[in-house]
Order: sequence, then C-alpha cells, then structure tokens
Amino acid sequence: MLPTAEDVVEAGARIAGRVRQTPLLTLAADTAAGVPLVLKLEQLQHTGSFKPRGAFNTLLAAKVGSEGVICASGGNHGIAVAYAARELGVPAEVFVPLSSSPVKVKLLRALGAKVRQVGSVYAEALAAMTERQASTGALEVHAYDQPAVIAGQGTLFAEWLQQDPQLDTVVVAVGGGGLLGGALAAIGDRVRLVAVEPHRAPTLASALDAGEPVDVEVSGLAADSLGARRIGRLAFELARARGVVSLTVGDDEIRAAQHWLWSHARIVTEPGGAAAVAAVLGGHYRTRPGERIGVLICGANADLASLAA
Amino acid sequence: MLPTAEDVVEAGARIAGRVRQTPLLTLAADTAAGVPLVLKLEQLQHTGSFKPRGAFNTLLAAKVGSEGVICASGGNHGIAVAYAARELGVPAEVFVPLSSSPVKVKLLRALGAKVRQVGSVYAEALAAMTERQASTGALEVHAYDQPAVIAGQGTLFAEWLQQDPQLDTVVVAVGGGGLLGGALAAIGDRVRLVAVEPHRAPTLASALDAGEPVDVEVSGLAADSLGARRIGRLAFELARARGVVSLTVGDDEIRAAQHWLWSHARIVTEPGGAAAVAAVLGGHYRTRPGERIGVLICGANADLASLAA
Repeated sequence: MLPTAEDVVEAGARIAGRVRQTPLLTLAADTAAGVPLVLKLEQLQHTGSFKPRGAFNTLLAAKVGSEGVICASGGNHGIAVAYAARELGVPAEVFVPLSSSPVKVKLLRALGAKVRQVGSVYAEALAAMTERQASTGALEVHAYDQPAVIAGQGTLFAEWLQQDPQLDTVVVAVGGGGLLGGALAAIGDRVRLVAVEPHRAPTLASALDAGEPVDVEVSGLAADSLGARRIGRLAFELARARGVVSLTVGDDEIRAAQHWLWSHARIVTEPGGAAAVAAVLGGHYRTRPGERIGVLICGANADLASLAA
Repeated sequence: MLPTAEDVVEAGARIAGRVRQTPLLTLAADTAAGVPLVLKLEQLQHTGSFKPRGAFNTLLAAKVGSEGVICASGGNHGIAVAYAARELGVPAEVFVPLSSSPVKVKLLRALGAKVRQVGSVYAEALAAMTERQASTGALEVHAYDQPAVIAGQGTLFAEWLQQDPQLDTVVVAVGGGGLLGGALAAIGDRVRLVAVEPHRAPTLASALDAGEPVDVEVSGLAADSLGARRIGRLAFELARARGVVSLTVGDDEIRAAQHWLWSHARIVTEPGGAAAVAAVLGGHYRTRPGERIGVLICGANADLASLAA
C-alpha cells in the first residue's frame, strides 16, 4: 500500500511533541532563481536531520518493546532511530557502512546505540542488518522503503504547507526516497515537487529512465546521506505516478552551496543537506515569475572543521 | 533624547526590505529553565548579527552621500556598516582593535571597507576613529550610543513581539548597550528584560552599581563582541529607569552554551551570541512556572574550526 495524505495526518498526531516544528527563513531574490527562496530549516530538528519524524512514527505505531529496534543507515537514519529508541526507552542496534562520516558514528555512539560498521556502502550494511535481524527479532526500521517511515517524513511537508500555504514548489534532495515519498504523500497535486540528486548517486533519475528501481554506482561528497544504491519501491511508485523529474548536481555545486549557506545566512549543512539549494543556485531549476519556491535544508551533521574557510 | 517606541516603529518602516525577518525556534523544557525556550535566530541576519538594523537605520535617516561613513567596532558593527554602505553605494571606513577575530576582519575586507586595525581594545579604535572623522567629515555611526542605532536595533524586538505576542521575558546579551537600549525602547512595560554580561566585561552591572557609566576592564572569550569599555549613556538611562538587572556568566559557561547550541540544535554562535543562552542554561535566571521566555541568539561570526569537536 502506498502511503497517503491520511497516513501523514495520523503520523503527525502520533509524533506530536516528539519532534520540533522547524522554522522558515526567506532569502532575497538575488540568486539564479530570481525569486525569493523560502528555506525550511529542518537541519534544526532533533539529531540534525529530518529523520526522527519517520523513526518516531515507526516506533510509536509498532509499540516496540524490549526486543528493541534495528536498522541500517548511511548515518542520519541510524542516529534518529537511536535517538527515538532512547527517548522511548528501548534498545537500538545500528549498522552503518565504513563510508559513514566519523561525525555521524560519534553521534550514534553518544546516543547509546550498539553500532556495527559493516561494508563500504549502505547496501552492504543493509544486507548485514537483515541477517542479524532474523536472529534477534528486533523491529526493523528501514531507512526509507517502509510506509510508516515515509508517512513520518511526510509530516515535514504537512507542517511546511501549514506555515506557508502559498508555496507553489518545494525542492528536495533525494537519496533512497523516504523524504520524496513523504513529500508526495503529503502535498497533493497543487504543489510541484522538484527532486535533486547528486550526479554520483542518481537513484531516482536512473529508475525513471529504466522504468523501475535499478542499482546505481554510488560515490561522491554526499554519499553518506544520499548514497542509497537504489530508490525505494514505494517512493518510485509515487514519483512515477506524479511525473516527478529529477535534477542532478555536481559535487562542486554541492560544496559551493554549503559555503554559500554559511556565508549568506550562517546556516551549516552537510553535503546532502545543501543539495537542493545547489540545484537552485546552479540555475538547474527554472522558476516562473512570481513563483513561491521552498527549498529544504535537510541535514547538518557535518564536520565543522571541514566548513571552516 | 532617549529613543522611544515611536522611533523604533519609524526605524522599522525605514529599513523594511533591507533586513531579514529572522525566525523563532522553540526548544523543549528540559533545561535548567524548566520551561520551553523561544530562541530568536537573529544570527541568520545579513552579516551574521543584528547590527545591520541599526546601521541601515542610521544611514537611511541621514541620507549619507559620497563623503561616506566611518565607525569603530569590535567587528560585527563594522561589518554591518560596511554591508549597509555597500548596499547603498557609499564608501565605508572601519576602525577595529587588534582583539577583533581574524574571521571578522576577513569579512570586513570582503565587503570592500577600508579597514584600520588600531589599539588593543574597542575603546582605542574608537579614539582613533574620532580623530580621523574630524578630518574626513564622514558620517559617524556609533556602535551603540546613538539614537538612530538604538532605534534600529529595537526593530528586532518589535518584530519578535509581533511573531510571539505572548512573550513574558526576553533574555539579551549586553556589551555597549545598543541592543539593550533598543529592546527597552521597543518592548514596553509588560515584557521583562533580562540583561546578560560576561564576568569579564560587566559594563552594565558596573554602571548600575556606580550610578553612572564607568570604565571597566575588558577581557575574555566574548570581548570582541561584548567588549565595550563602558555602557552607553542612552542605554544606561533607559536601563536605570526600568530597573533592569544584569546577570553575569563565565567564559566556561559561554563556551558550554556554544557547544550545547550546536549539539542540540545545529546552531552556530560566536561567544557573545551564546551569552544569553549561557545564563539560562546555567540557571542564573529563575523562571516562574508557565513563563514564556525568549532568548536572543545575536551573532554567529565564529571560526567554525574553533567549534569543531
């Protein structure tokens, strides 16, 4: 079953009080967009990314007990699952690939999760997690391809449209598709969704070309947050039904967007968190005059030293 | 003449479109405050601090021409004056002490200002600027003790109360008193103002003790933003009339607040920008049950490398 707007509303009620309402910041029309940009500052969410929305929704819907939860993650999903598990008083076991940034692994450990570093990319950590789950019986929280996770991420967009009902377009980075699926479930037909992927992790673009989810080679600056090997089935079905187009951005554009956000608005982002802004600054999305465009800042689990000038 | 609420309203109309409306973020009641904290994220303002509000108001009210503007600053005021001057197409000359952080001096130069590094603290840069101004005739923009500057800073509080009319209390860091004076002019009697100063730059506390502005020794972590040698006369008169009390915080508490803001909400601050939060986290301000408390994040011109864990 594909997640629906009703699922998102139910998720919103379920996770109320567990997640922050994150604010908007409007920047002037002096970028390639030619119109003001309404930034949604979701990097200010608990754990530094949007991921607690899906994690809390999944854990609360399943009423997980002492068997605890288990997941595989590039980093941010695992941190969110560990955070939600700690808040709800249940154990968490998290598999991450060796490509996860040291910053993220450190955050995971600080939250008290059992951390397993396996494989070089997310897909390998996922395989190891699946095997382990069969022996422990812990609740699996998929990083993106699970209805409760997608409905939870959708609450971000329901919240955003409540804050700014006039939005015409939202620009969103895509990895495995949890956020994308949530957006498509939440926003209805009036609002246009623009998906953005790194050149070096084009899961959605490749799937749309092939007519179905396919494996892609994953590398580059944002691999630890947008580096799923293939788009989730649920998000793909939602995206195909809605005719979503994927724009791709280069690592140099992502890096430039990170520095632009810091120098223009003192906003820190990780590479994946700046990808949507990169597409706008790079002129990859052509706005119409008067279009009200929202751009999601989705994560900030960066090494601050790497951003220092 | 002391700045009034009417002056703040006029300033707001004058600078509209030149400054950003900065957002609020509400954090949960799990700190020493025991109530939720409504953070005003003014570090997201142009140039990374609240200072453009006063700078634009002064430049626009004076209709400055080709003679340009001149100021002395610990750093942030100079950056704001340079930014406003560039936006309005007039030249700027800025005197900063050698204690200004390299990050701030770099930002100043990037904005095209003539930068003069003179003296070890702000007061010495101010003396050099006054001498220079007599020969150039440029418009002086004082960092805090000037009615148009104070009225401009007051727009921050008028905006804040419009965003959150239920605020009972605002907690604000104090250096020379421009922000303090603006707050007192703007907020009226219903809202309580709590002033926060570093132990090592207690200009307001010392003036209230002495019954008039007096020189203090200035040092410590936040000296480059809160390191005026004495409180401005205008802010002092406003503070005395309203019975404002100053709380002081240690450098260790300021540093802890910077790290707390990053680890809990991915907010970057400079030391002075975190001082108000430090007072709340340190339990120096005793909240009443149900009190709605706002805490101002006033600056983020930090060296990111210094915040890296």
